[in-house]
Amino acid sequence: MTESVHTNIDIALVHFPVYNKSGDIVTSSVTTLDVHDISRICRTYAVNTFYVVTPLETQQKLVNRMMEHWLEGYGSEYNPTRKEALLSTRVVNVLDEAVADITQRRGKQPKTVIPDAKRFPHSRSYPEVRAALNTDHPHLLVFGTGWGLEKGIVERADLILAPIDGLSGYNHLPVRAAIAIILDRLLGRETQAE
Amino acid sequence: MTESVHTNIDIALVHFPVYNKSGDIVTSSVTTLDVHDISRICRTYAVNTFYVVTPLETQQKLVNRMMEHWLEGYGSEYNPTRKEALLSTRVVNVLDEAVADITQRRGKQPKTVIPDAKRFPHSRSYPEVRAALNTDHPHLLVFGTGWGLEKGIVERADLILAPIDGLSGYNHLPVRAAIAIILDRLLGRETQAE
Repeated sequence: MTESVHTNIDIALVHFPVYNKSGDIVTSSVTTLDVHDISRICRTYAVNTFYVVTPLETQQKLVNRMMEHWLEGYGSEYNPTRKEALLSTRVVNVLDEAVADITQRRGKQPKTVIPDAKRFPHSRSYPEVRAALNTDHPHLLVFGTGWGLEKGIVERADLILAPIDGLSGYNHLPVRAAIAIILDRLLGRETQAE
Repeated sequence: MTESVHTNIDIALVHFPVYNKSGDIVTSSVTTLDVHDISRICRTYAVNTFYVVTPLETQQKLVNRMMEHWLEGYGSEYNPTRKEALLSTRVVNVLDEAVADITQRRGKQPKTVIPDAKRFPHSRSYPEVRAALNTDHPHLLVFGTGWGLEKGIVERADLILAPIDGLSGYNHLPVRAAIAIILDRLLGRETQAE
């Protein structure tokens, strides 16, 4: 086990309500690879809990069975770094369940931070959100899957984070890559040192 | 198609020679998901060419067949952003073939930059390498798979890049996440603006 550090950050990966390609509101499928990758990324940046949000019982069972394999089964000996990454991963039904869990643990309701692919007048820059995270207040970063979070969730966010903006105008990163880049910008050491 | 930008950067993902868990030098398997994710990340940061390096003919065929599907087959209409990402992806036998290809295209042999999970006295920081990339000279960023690049390749690198260093001492990011973070630190706009 590596050293234990705590930040004020939790992360949720939401599979409902999200849009599909046609703009319908759907429940997207959980990708177990997302769960592994994002768990490792969260562990690297000392995120408290990574919540996988899906209301579908079959999908919840799938994730829990996969986690049992790596946490307790043969996988825990075969690949201990994967086990360590998954220790802080949890499956919940809805986003509010993650909010309630954090509120209970921390005694304060977390502020929600949602990155959006579009830039709005009220979008916050990375340095602004980085400063906001550097306080005692818990913050929940919420990421959508499929074609993005249902807009009601985005409208209720406390902070909208500006898009990543690469160099090319191409704006189609996989969610696992976006989470890696965003956590590094908000929490990474090298950026902070400059 | 989004705007066309050129950087001085190419990327290679090496499947041979790399170490396996026991420290033997092996050829790791190509993960098609790595090819998709890294192609999207490279497209986002305007990397010139993403070289998938494997000497195994069966693996080369696998990648080329997958690319044909998305570039020319049904996939090109179903998911044009995936097609666009794969346009600059190429399979080569060995790392030297990527170096030769860049040398021919650019008229100069690229300098190789290799991120290492360990920090050495001569490791370069991200701002140092960012400045080096901001010149006319072509640079090839080389990433290993499996348990890392064979040490002879690392020793011959022109620049060794410092490890990512999260917050927890946990140092087991998937290669696709590491590439996303490293390209953002070396080429991203938001970091540059600060």
